[in-house]
Amino acid sequence: MDRLEQQAAFCLEIDREKFIGRQTYLSDGERKENDAEHAWHMAVMALVLSEYANEEIDVLRTISMLLIHDLVEIDAGDTYAYDEEALKTQGEREQQAADRIFNLLPEDQAAEFFGLWREFEERKTPESRFAHAMDNFQPVMLNAATDGKAWAERNVRLSQVLKRNQKTGDGSRKLWEYSWEHFIQPNRKAGKIQDDCGGEA
Amino acid sequence: MDRLEQQAAFCLEIDREKFIGRQTYLSDGERKENDAEHAWHMAVMALVLSEYANEEIDVLRTISMLLIHDLVEIDAGDTYAYDEEALKTQGEREQQAADRIFNLLPEDQAAEFFGLWREFEERKTPESRFAHAMDNFQPVMLNAATDGKAWAERNVRLSQVLKRNQKTGDGSRKLWEYSWEHFIQPNRKAGKIQDDCGGEA
Repeated sequence: MDRLEQQAAFCLEIDREKFIGRQTYLSDGERKENDAEHAWHMAVMALVLSEYANEEIDVLRTISMLLIHDLVEIDAGDTYAYDEEALKTQGEREQQAADRIFNLLPEDQAAEFFGLWREFEERKTPESRFAHAMDNFQPVMLNAATDGKAWAERNVRLSQVLKRNQKTGDGSRKLWEYSWEHFIQPNRKAGKIQDDCGGEA
Repeated sequence: MDRLEQQAAFCLEIDREKFIGRQTYLSDGERKENDAEHAWHMAVMALVLSEYANEEIDVLRTISMLLIHDLVEIDAGDTYAYDEEALKTQGEREQQAADRIFNLLPEDQAAEFFGLWREFEERKTPESRFAHAMDNFQPVMLNAATDGKAWAERNVRLSQVLKRNQKTGDGSRKLWEYSWEHFIQPNRKAGKIQDDCGGEA
């Protein structure tokens, strides 16, 4: 295959990200979102909210990470944040998926996409820390918009939400504070998130 | 509202783009895609295919346009490319939508988003011309992947496909040639696109 044929094959393959479901309800509280919708939403939010990154960030690299880091879920599936068993095998499943999917691209671009994916996973750069802040802020925002429906249905505990968000503030202190005050606290108080932290977390 | 509250309200409002349906079938040929999925797909494709832009482009600005230009459809709906009546009122409906939706943002960001949206609509910059090439290439790719199902169902004629794509080559000659050769011609030959151009278009 020539270069453009390889790229076109990749562009068609990634359509399948639209079939990967997540656990977050959309703002209508009826349908749950898929990975492609989630990635789009975070990318636009990064355009709007990048001023709140703790450190200066390259917005294009941040958005590129947000757009592509879930492609591995085409093969590996979405691993629910609070599914302890699935979390154990997540790394291996996603590495195999990255090998297959990114290698549909010409070698130089495959290397670039691997790099973005690893950068996101490793959280060592300001861009990856802010991208993770978006990845945590966006579903919490939607869960709050649906009056904690997803949290209540799965009996999610405050300690789990806090563990999931323990590094959100590494990307953006301001957005973590906002998320805590506007999204998490009201749902703790309303009992949609089970408070297993003695009410003082 | 303070600045971040305005931005958060915008970020939540745009969730509704996920409910705006398009006429293109996803690659499974069963479900049709929505605007958010379409925007995500084009943005990743722009990352992969930007080397084929006729002129050098700023990739971040191109992707930003692709990510946000359909937000107006939250109010105005998707206007099908071959619906002549709807096309007449599209401009006015989308202007009203832009006024409401972008103005949820703080003034500086509202101006930035209006600017990106107008730049896309006006097609005067290399970035906007390439963004339009993506906007045409992506659904044609999916229509071809589903053996022309959407074209056949709506009795789409070749002259319509050519009119819709008359400026695709202004953004990328190479991608327009690829689209013609790999996506459109095979479906013309298979009768999925009605050839009203005498077979020589």
